[in-house]
Amino acid sequence: MKDIKEIIADIAVSTRIRLARNVRGIPFPTGAGETEPEIVKPVYTELSKLGTFRLFSMEKTGATEANALCERRLISPDLMRNKQSGAAIISENESISVMINEEDHIRQQCFLNGFNLDEAFAAADRIDDALSDKIDFAFHSDYGYITACPTNLGTGLRASVMLFLPALTITGQIGQLIHAVSRERNTVRGVYGEGSAAEGSMYQLSNQVSLGITEADILSHVAGTVVKICSAENEARGTLLKYGTLEIKDRVQRAYGILTHAARLESKEFMSLLSDVKLGAALELLQLPPSGTLDELIVKMQPANIMLAAGAELSAEQRDVYRAEFVAKALSLIS
Amino acid sequence: MKDIKEIIADIAVSTRIRLARNVRGIPFPTGAGETEPEIVKPVYTELSKLGTFRLFSMEKTGATEANALCERRLISPDLMRNKQSGAAIISENESISVMINEEDHIRQQCFLNGFNLDEAFAAADRIDDALSDKIDFAFHSDYGYITACPTNLGTGLRASVMLFLPALTITGQIGQLIHAVSRERNTVRGVYGEGSAAEGSMYQLSNQVSLGITEADILSHVAGTVVKICSAENEARGTLLKYGTLEIKDRVQRAYGILTHAARLESKEFMSLLSDVKLGAALELLQLPPSGTLDELIVKMQPANIMLAAGAELSAEQRDVYRAEFVAKALSLIS
Repeated sequence: MKDIKEIIADIAVSTRIRLARNVRGIPFPTGAGETEPEIVKPVYTELSKLGTFRLFSMEKTGATEANALCERRLISPDLMRNKQSGAAIISENESISVMINEEDHIRQQCFLNGFNLDEAFAAADRIDDALSDKIDFAFHSDYGYITACPTNLGTGLRASVMLFLPALTITGQIGQLIHAVSRERNTVRGVYGEGSAAEGSMYQLSNQVSLGITEADILSHVAGTVVKICSAENEARGTLLKYGTLEIKDRVQRAYGILTHAARLESKEFMSLLSDVKLGAALELLQLPPSGTLDELIVKMQPANIMLAAGAELSAEQRDVYRAEFVAKALSLIS
Repeated sequence: MKDIKEIIADIAVSTRIRLARNVRGIPFPTGAGETEPEIVKPVYTELSKLGTFRLFSMEKTGATEANALCERRLISPDLMRNKQSGAAIISENESISVMINEEDHIRQQCFLNGFNLDEAFAAADRIDDALSDKIDFAFHSDYGYITACPTNLGTGLRASVMLFLPALTITGQIGQLIHAVSRERNTVRGVYGEGSAAEGSMYQLSNQVSLGITEADILSHVAGTVVKICSAENEARGTLLKYGTLEIKDRVQRAYGILTHAARLESKEFMSLLSDVKLGAALELLQLPPSGTLDELIVKMQPANIMLAAGAELSAEQRDVYRAEFVAKALSLIS
């Protein structure tokens, strides 16, 4: 029997902490560029004292590179659209990304692998301390940090954990779970894919409310929900194995066979097959190492990241061929 | 450029000659057993002078073994049903099978790999000569050999060639071709599968008429149609490669990936994937040896042959698992 820590390690892919901040007395970003404060420079200067950071102004960043950052979730589509004054300051290892003039003036983000809310929050908090020494953040004694959207008022904190939930998806229990979580003021939504279809069985759990609650309580409430969801996923995996061993074995082995042999792979099919292969690895039906390497593939195989790596604009078909070759090689290297 | 001989070698899987004969003055077989002539013993005695033969009386042959013979096309379902007096006398290498009391009293069959009408006919003719020395065959000076069904009157000869026609199947030209062939008094039909769906893209070309035409003319007419069909298949393969290289490459590579990785394989899916893999080998998109080994798999993976090899009655699911394991191993051995 696995204990809950091991279960969570199998299921929680990554953690993100985001703190929303604005500069006192200056209008929220509009994208028009004229009323925006000169904060890129001071923020970059402060961050550079803490480590090696790279500055991406949305005006000067090419479309493919900006899309690639977006696919790596370091910046948002909203930031990309603010060509006038949008910018991102990103640490060398990509664990820190501070977005300037997205919806708020400053959005400090910290990303870590696995389930690591406390450490991610501590890292974001260090950035926040450093910046608040130099910048006068808009803060109200009743409402806390002032943000463009009321849902971020208060702590300005969004704590998110990315979860790999293939068994809950296959058994169809995911819908019920999303509903139950939302009643407890947390949110679960698909990370990839449009609408309700979560490509790759990847879901993001986040807190819904940041006002009238401390940072510590937000973190512990999200952590509690992570435990519940991971237990449910673990149970669903057990059910799949117990009542459909041959079916699930066939499914994951075929997915592996196709991923290592296809001559072209569309993004959506790739995500679905990779999800099956990762499930197979988790259930020890496939002899593969833990899923870290496989998770990296998800980001590397997104369209703009493929083109960035290939150093060329590629058609959809060319990307599908590149994806098939890359994935086959990557899987054969780790098998 | 391949010449027509090489093209035919790529496409024609096997050849079968069948001669229908009956004993003068005795009613055709009815399956009732009482009126049937005592011909099993004399036929077996004569054949044993020519080589090593094994006698299977339908009364004593178990269902699995009889079905396995049927799947190997050595006997027919009609013969199987005649438990009273049906029998088959089969040579050790299974190239000769003489059915007793099927629709006719005696049906002499010769099977050879590849396209080999003349040699197969010569072998059947040798059997026919040997038996006609001892048995008085029903023969009419106008109608030739007398047979139970009028379509076999005359020579009693059916010359068949099994053809692998994946490209004509994929491009949809096969329907038109079947129609054209039938107007020239030959027949093309799917070998496996029910109704119009030819599993594994395997088709059998045979002469339709055996009356009012010499054996030599039947053979040369069938041979002429083989040349036409193989040329058409070869052209269709070229078209597939030229206009859909990536599509066909993806299709055959995926088929190989699934065949080598699935945990269970239903018969119908196996036939379809094997057809793709064989096409891939023929187009040199897959590094596989010529298709002889792959064709053997078709027969070995039929339900009764699986149970005979496993030495046990197996459920459909158990057979699917056996098939998946056997095929994966067989392909990995020849790859």
